[in-house]
Amino acid sequence: MSLLVVGSVALDSVETPFGKKEEVLGGSATFFSTAASFFNPVQLVAVVGEDFPEAHVQFLKARGIGLDGLTREKGRTFRWKGKYGFQLNEAQTLDTQLNVFQDFAPKLPEAYKGAPYVFLGNIHPELQSQVLDQVKGPKLVAADTMNFWINGTREALLKTLKRVNLLFVNDAEIRQLSGEHNIVKAARAVHTMGPSRVVVKRGEYGALLFEKDHIFACPAFPLEDVFDPTGAGDTFAGGFMGTLATAGRFEPDVIRRAMVMGSVMASFAVERFSLDRLRDLTQPEIHKRFSEFKRLTHFEDLAALQA
Amino acid sequence: MSLLVVGSVALDSVETPFGKKEEVLGGSATFFSTAASFFNPVQLVAVVGEDFPEAHVQFLKARGIGLDGLTREKGRTFRWKGKYGFQLNEAQTLDTQLNVFQDFAPKLPEAYKGAPYVFLGNIHPELQSQVLDQVKGPKLVAADTMNFWINGTREALLKTLKRVNLLFVNDAEIRQLSGEHNIVKAARAVHTMGPSRVVVKRGEYGALLFEKDHIFACPAFPLEDVFDPTGAGDTFAGGFMGTLATAGRFEPDVIRRAMVMGSVMASFAVERFSLDRLRDLTQPEIHKRFSEFKRLTHFEDLAALQA
Repeated sequence: MSLLVVGSVALDSVETPFGKKEEVLGGSATFFSTAASFFNPVQLVAVVGEDFPEAHVQFLKARGIGLDGLTREKGRTFRWKGKYGFQLNEAQTLDTQLNVFQDFAPKLPEAYKGAPYVFLGNIHPELQSQVLDQVKGPKLVAADTMNFWINGTREALLKTLKRVNLLFVNDAEIRQLSGEHNIVKAARAVHTMGPSRVVVKRGEYGALLFEKDHIFACPAFPLEDVFDPTGAGDTFAGGFMGTLATAGRFEPDVIRRAMVMGSVMASFAVERFSLDRLRDLTQPEIHKRFSEFKRLTHFEDLAALQA
Repeated sequence: MSLLVVGSVALDSVETPFGKKEEVLGGSATFFSTAASFFNPVQLVAVVGEDFPEAHVQFLKARGIGLDGLTREKGRTFRWKGKYGFQLNEAQTLDTQLNVFQDFAPKLPEAYKGAPYVFLGNIHPELQSQVLDQVKGPKLVAADTMNFWINGTREALLKTLKRVNLLFVNDAEIRQLSGEHNIVKAARAVHTMGPSRVVVKRGEYGALLFEKDHIFACPAFPLEDVFDPTGAGDTFAGGFMGTLATAGRFEPDVIRRAMVMGSVMASFAVERFSLDRLRDLTQPEIHKRFSEFKRLTHFEDLAALQA
């Protein structure tokens, strides 16, 4: 079942303790759609400028991503510049240039409006609402957001959240959004805002899924070399939503598999700069790491041990 | 198989955002032995002062803990005073009074020297070594330590670690001990110091076990109310070591169960002040929470899902 994503496509300049890259492919919708494309057809709605390299367009096309909603406008592409210390969990933003993204007003191609699975990347909540005004009866609407919108456009965000089924946030964001320090209470508060499912991303500590009567915990894969955490959250969401969309249902068994698949994809993304690790990633590698997650977390229940 | 613990028995004064307790039962060996006593006979070696309430001794006795190595010396009992903010992961120490603990020289009763399972609580590494000088061919020696010893008595600690099979540390401690920021590399560095097994405790984020070719991740139980994290790490170690000792072996299936049981016991300990939640804890409650951990972490492998 087709999966629609609306968000940013960007050129990133990133510095980590392990190296530096200038103007490489980035953006929430880019990471998301690339990760999701390993599982399910993806339709991308975003904007780039005249300077956006054609090679990047070709890369997305080669991954089978629908680009009818990717418009090229006069001006420069959105740029983000960030830096990470050894504490790789949090980026320091050095510069943001919205450029063509400043006037982004997502317009869905007719053929995309019936997408049953929708992911609203981390953009202004009013733009997220505009997307929802255009889609026709989606099965599942997921969204990402950040401190900037939680603080600055809270009313608009709360309005959007009423129409969202699943929210991706990190620890700090859910605390800020809910006003609750305790994560369990914070998730319950978010349920009352609309989303009946909340995924709390905790970087190197993994992710938690909260449904009303059901919690699932997935660790992050313990990696020896994390080169660049940029896009890990969107890659997680891409693996997650791609898994749901291809299954076409979201019972607990599928939701749990989606959590693990999100973690699998994120674990690859951070191994190299930009989307480089996803470029040559193969299905057997994905399956192998999924099995490694099983090995990482599996234990016998008490009955089996006592037998 | 009997389990020996050497460490501190203390009177704690603790303040958290949820309340305040003065001079309640505490200490690494107290939390450890109480937790372990749910699984296996425990022999405690520690020192208290003349002011140590007899009711606490009776509590430990009622839990079946061997107290032949608990000596009462002239002077006051070891006292610790700490405070937690909403970020419950780290305590701020307000005051430490060593008192009788200052001259503690652990002397093992003859009957304790053959203990196959040994836990060296967080005390001076030279005292830890003195304990190991007295035991006769233990099957497994586990130890805890902290930043104070890693910084201040590094040489003595490295000498002790050569004789330790399993080390319990937290994130910050393993980074400090190894000089590696990455946890996987840090664990590998600790393996070369002696311990072939390392458990990294990460508070609300759970715990990781590193063996040479094997990693296991266990989340912390998502609790709505964490009242007092004091002793969570030692309670974890108690549940862990009690589980190993009662199994009498440490193949991966048992080690994994021990990790989960450690997490189960720690999840109870933090629900109330001091050891209060462990006082009325029952085996059915322990088994129920173990099952809840299974539910929290379980997912089907891909083959099962595709079937």
